[in-house]
Amino acid sequence: MTHLLDHSHVLQTMQALVFKGPNQIALETRPRPTLLSSSDALVRITQTTLCGTDVHILKGDVPTVTPGRILGHEGVGVIASVGENVTSFKPGDKVIIACVTSCSRCSFCRKGMYSHCTTGGWQLGNTIDGTQAEFVRIPYADTSLYHLPAELDAESGVMLSDILPTGLECGVLNGQVKPGDRVAIVGAGPVGISALLTAQLYSPAQIIMIDRDANRLEMALSFGATDLVQNSDGKAVEHVMALTDYAGVDVAIEAVGLSETFDICQGIIAPGGHIANIGVHGKPVELHLEKLWAANITLTTRLLDTSTLPTLLILVKSGRLEPQKLVTHRFPLSEICKAYDVFLNAARENALKVIISNSKKDQSA
Amino acid sequence: MTHLLDHSHVLQTMQALVFKGPNQIALETRPRPTLLSSSDALVRITQTTLCGTDVHILKGDVPTVTPGRILGHEGVGVIASVGENVTSFKPGDKVIIACVTSCSRCSFCRKGMYSHCTTGGWQLGNTIDGTQAEFVRIPYADTSLYHLPAELDAESGVMLSDILPTGLECGVLNGQVKPGDRVAIVGAGPVGISALLTAQLYSPAQIIMIDRDANRLEMALSFGATDLVQNSDGKAVEHVMALTDYAGVDVAIEAVGLSETFDICQGIIAPGGHIANIGVHGKPVELHLEKLWAANITLTTRLLDTSTLPTLLILVKSGRLEPQKLVTHRFPLSEICKAYDVFLNAARENALKVIISNSKKDQSA
Amino acid sequence: MTHLLDHSHVLQTMQALVFKGPNQIALETRPRPTLLSSSDALVRITQTTLCGTDVHILKGDVPTVTPGRILGHEGVGVIASVGENVTSFKPGDKVIIACVTSCSRCSFCRKGMYSHCTTGGWQLGNTIDGTQAEFVRIPYADTSLYHLPAELDAESGVMLSDILPTGLECGVLNGQVKPGDRVAIVGAGPVGISALLTAQLYSPAQIIMIDRDANRLEMALSFGATDLVQNSDGKAVEHVMALTDYAGVDVAIEAVGLSETFDICQGIIAPGGHIANIGVHGKPVELHLEKLWAANITLTTRLLDTSTLPTLLILVKSGRLEPQKLVTHRFPLSEICKAYDVFLNAARENALKVIISNSKKDQSA
Amino acid sequence: MTHLLDHSHVLQTMQALVFKGPNQIALETRPRPTLLSSSDALVRITQTTLCGTDVHILKGDVPTVTPGRILGHEGVGVIASVGENVTSFKPGDKVIIACVTSCSRCSFCRKGMYSHCTTGGWQLGNTIDGTQAEFVRIPYADTSLYHLPAELDAESGVMLSDILPTGLECGVLNGQVKPGDRVAIVGAGPVGISALLTAQLYSPAQIIMIDRDANRLEMALSFGATDLVQNSDGKAVEHVMALTDYAGVDVAIEAVGLSETFDICQGIIAPGGHIANIGVHGKPVELHLEKLWAANITLTTRLLDTSTLPTLLILVKSGRLEPQKLVTHRFPLSEICKAYDVFLNAARENALKVIISNSKKDQSA
Repeated sequence: MTHLLDHSHVLQTMQALVFKGPNQIALETRPRPTLLSSSDALVRITQTTLCGTDVHILKGDVPTVTPGRILGHEGVGVIASVGENVTSFKPGDKVIIACVTSCSRCSFCRKGMYSHCTTGGWQLGNTIDGTQAEFVRIPYADTSLYHLPAELDAESGVMLSDILPTGLECGVLNGQVKPGDRVAIVGAGPVGISALLTAQLYSPAQIIMIDRDANRLEMALSFGATDLVQNSDGKAVEHVMALTDYAGVDVAIEAVGLSETFDICQGIIAPGGHIANIGVHGKPVELHLEKLWAANITLTTRLLDTSTLPTLLILVKSGRLEPQKLVTHRFPLSEICKAYDVFLNAARENALKVIISNSKKDQSA
Repeated sequence: MTHLLDHSHVLQTMQALVFKGPNQIALETRPRPTLLSSSDALVRITQTTLCGTDVHILKGDVPTVTPGRILGHEGVGVIASVGENVTSFKPGDKVIIACVTSCSRCSFCRKGMYSHCTTGGWQLGNTIDGTQAEFVRIPYADTSLYHLPAELDAESGVMLSDILPTGLECGVLNGQVKPGDRVAIVGAGPVGISALLTAQLYSPAQIIMIDRDANRLEMALSFGATDLVQNSDGKAVEHVMALTDYAGVDVAIEAVGLSETFDICQGIIAPGGHIANIGVHGKPVELHLEKLWAANITLTTRLLDTSTLPTLLILVKSGRLEPQKLVTHRFPLSEICKAYDVFLNAARENALKVIISNSKKDQSA
Repeated sequence: MTHLLDHSHVLQTMQALVFKGPNQIALETRPRPTLLSSSDALVRITQTTLCGTDVHILKGDVPTVTPGRILGHEGVGVIASVGENVTSFKPGDKVIIACVTSCSRCSFCRKGMYSHCTTGGWQLGNTIDGTQAEFVRIPYADTSLYHLPAELDAESGVMLSDILPTGLECGVLNGQVKPGDRVAIVGAGPVGISALLTAQLYSPAQIIMIDRDANRLEMALSFGATDLVQNSDGKAVEHVMALTDYAGVDVAIEAVGLSETFDICQGIIAPGGHIANIGVHGKPVELHLEKLWAANITLTTRLLDTSTLPTLLILVKSGRLEPQKLVTHRFPLSEICKAYDVFLNAARENALKVIISNSKKDQSA
Repeated sequence: MTHLLDHSHVLQTMQALVFKGPNQIALETRPRPTLLSSSDALVRITQTTLCGTDVHILKGDVPTVTPGRILGHEGVGVIASVGENVTSFKPGDKVIIACVTSCSRCSFCRKGMYSHCTTGGWQLGNTIDGTQAEFVRIPYADTSLYHLPAELDAESGVMLSDILPTGLECGVLNGQVKPGDRVAIVGAGPVGISALLTAQLYSPAQIIMIDRDANRLEMALSFGATDLVQNSDGKAVEHVMALTDYAGVDVAIEAVGLSETFDICQGIIAPGGHIANIGVHGKPVELHLEKLWAANITLTTRLLDTSTLPTLLILVKSGRLEPQKLVTHRFPLSEICKAYDVFLNAARENALKVIISNSKKDQSA
């Protein structure tokens, strides 16, 4: 009986990675979340991961994230319970969590722009508690979760929460990559590599990766880059122009979020070309309209919508994409602070995506 | 016999408006141009006009235009002679001159981007002599001239050389205006009014015109604007937001070319919206990626291609567009310097487009 | 007390138009519908209308409609009650009923193809009871109803349930009508007139209406047709070709549903043109691939999705569309059988859309 | 001197494959063609090939081809001479011949629809003498020939004249194949295999090849098909439905030209899907509008434009496409009648594309 009470008590709490303020995180014991709405689901996380956005949060750059917030917006898990209006999922189902919550009813959702859902959008690990924990509450579960197919490994599933749709939607689709194109991607971190992987779905002739870090460029080569430009001498623009017979590129994808990297995109874009910004920018940039006003270019920005998640699922199932190759490191949830340490030094550690597992729970699932 | 020689001499010269250096223009006697290539045509100008770009040239802002250049890139006229390879036109044909010269063969021309034709593009009144004269040589005549239909008045034809396709291509098509949209146009000069006229081809629900000048706004109302914002208090953004129930606009068209007016566009664009830049910018602008990176916006630039000229011809013929309403002033070529004076003070003079006629020649045509 | 019981009894029944089998309908007393799901709404109908599809049903051509079914899939009304999961509507709200029910969650709904919603689609007056009654149950109310704005008259609202989105989606959007196009519409009934009205949103240069009935063509002229072809001599193709300088049309819209009218479309389409089928066909047609295989044409079919209903609402509110002009006759619900009689002889009666009102209830709303 | 005369005489004639009437061809000595216009080029053919269209001609099915015509519309060669207006090519240049002639000036050419060029289109081996000869005259050489890059083998070049752009333009682009799609291609001959090869540029998840011939299906597997359906039992529709979990395919490509194969496409298309017809049809087909009117499908036809030839060149150069794998047989021009014999029995001979070489000339080039 004591045991039962204890057990009950154990069920009510969980471990979670909590943002404590700029540059402070801690793994803490927190109450387990409960359903707040009839359209919610409670998901037991089996695998989650860290995102560049979490690094921004940690640095204090994301004001919507306040101390006390459980971080994380990616992951796969198992349905623990569902509200009475949830019709697509039941306890025990394995699911992929979309990092963006979609009500499916507002005008933005009805045109596929879930990122700007009037009551959803990017909430997890931002304005509500997130996935770097043992459990997470998912609002609008029917349209914010996706079944993890039996033939898919969990780590591939985690890559579909955010990183792969980010590369595809904000980079490749917004950049309108098409067969035969010359494409340049500035930044060979996880986002840039995701753009590199998904750009190949459209068969460009050339994909030039640009980064300061030689190791990352080496990795990019194994992911399908056709040309590498190590931007250590500040002459990336000249190198890219030489690689394109001085025509410039059809598509330039910005995957860093700095003024300097955005400048490279402006310098290499061909007339009629597309600049697709993915990077999270903290400051304004200079736009060279004095040159570009007559260059017939298109510049896009986008917070990913996860609207391509179903298509990406099909592509991974069919073997056309192998996103688990993005995973370079693995840690149990108990060592998530160590994982953050590795991820904060990603270039040094040759890290792309870092998987955090709830290993014991995983075995029992 | 003496008479014949004199006559011959008269035929060899013409009056032309010549750029003499910053802030200096003069109507001069110049040799009449001759065919230089088998694909050229010689056109006797009957009507031409002044463009905002001519004002930029006059201020010395366009370095490709050197002293001695005959200005002007718009106009209608009568074919005087054609090279042996010109198959679509013969002497006596009335024609509209596209301001952009297209070889029709290069990779840019083959995708409809005549503005970046490798041996053409914007040449008239820029790198070769232009249309503010009695005669002009037109390279690649077959694909740079269009027949002026008998049912079209010449002044409507002049509006199709540049101003109307500019509004349609750089503003409306690049901005992807569609039925029901909320559209804002910053700048109620000729370019902005052209965007206003052609935007209505796609039935937006709301077209908000923004300008500092009350007279120009008044004119905009007669051209179909649904709302006016006089930007005298620097609060244009607030006014537009109020006019759109604080949703912002679907399409913001920049038709001025200044940092301040570009800022207005950034401030009023709704998530998922389109900013279409038409203005000729002399300096870089600040792009607020720290806000816009997540706003799913599309920003475009474009030098007009005149690829819509055939469609605009059909629309004017059918009565769906009445571009001659843009003409506010008329001068003979002999008074073109006075015309420049009026156009340089367009707001004060309530001027939009100013027609320059070669009146005597016109009667004899 | 007796009174109360009686009153309660009155509330439980309603008048409804019931399909009794081929060529048999009757106005009957039926139990008032109740909520069956937490996402349902019960709507008290104030205005409904008859559709060409109802005529097909009456003839016995629609096997999914079985005897006993209350017909009707269009209408406006007032919310009587809502299920607990309905968040966008409350009792007393005035609403427009979309003829297509959308769950908003299935893969079809998520790409805007509500017509093929896996648990919705065209159900009203087909597989569930419809709107030609005093009350109707609406499944998935949040995404199948739309607020009727205060500034919109109810009859305009009824036109947005089906007829106007049908013309726009199946005819104009599928036909890709664009500025300057030559458009032909075969059939000047309500569907063809809706295509005519909404085609003008895209400023075609020419809209040729083709019908056998001179009265209907006369009406088409008042709705904006530029040319009329009375197809009494079987020479419609020749007439249209003559009207287009023997170039053919860019867009041919089939709004009848017969082999002969489909043939006209095949005969008049220009190379590169679009044939948009709206008509409900009971039999296969002959497709002249022996001619068309090399003509670069696009042929589309579509069951309307009502995905354009929000945009049409904006356009009607802004005055760009006046759909109430489609209403030619009005009847109270008690005379709905007479209304069917008029509608079945629409050409003779000069009828387009026939409004059925629940007049007394309307006053009390 | 005698020698010179003899030599001159040799230059004046050539060997050519001539259509003599239904089922009659012959290799004959014919006068070598000469330039007829200043925009013509004379090309010495080094490699040409046979097309399914040549088989149609041979059967007497193409009335525009009259006895005496030299057949053939594909090939690579060396420029022998050019007219004075040809600016992009000079004698000695190696070129690919586009099977469609484009003037680049007419309204069709200006929108990329070269197939319907008002003075060009498919002329070679149809209304003017073709490429199955030692020399051919090419009208509008500047826009109907393409430089064969040094790094490209000649046989790959021949595949770009017609067969590869046919698969891409009429099948893949018209069918709007996109990542993750389920695609079915009916017909595993050269055209179907070209569609199969180029469909992979867009990363569909599934490509089902349907044919009666087991050998051809086997070949299709090596070209990237994911599923095969041998249509020997007339149950192709059932098989495809089973292979797609009874959802049908997103894109059905018809690459045969018969009523039966077109029917398969109608039977397997999913709601919202695309049927892209490539096949040359001699007779009308039955279109099942009684089922498809409500299926939201798009059906396209197209005579290839060769507008994708430049992009295909880039893709072959970059190694993304290997079209020379389509070549199964090779013959010298002297044995072209034998080559026709093989090609007429393509299934039995396991033939796809058959290369005809002017071998001696080739060595001297």
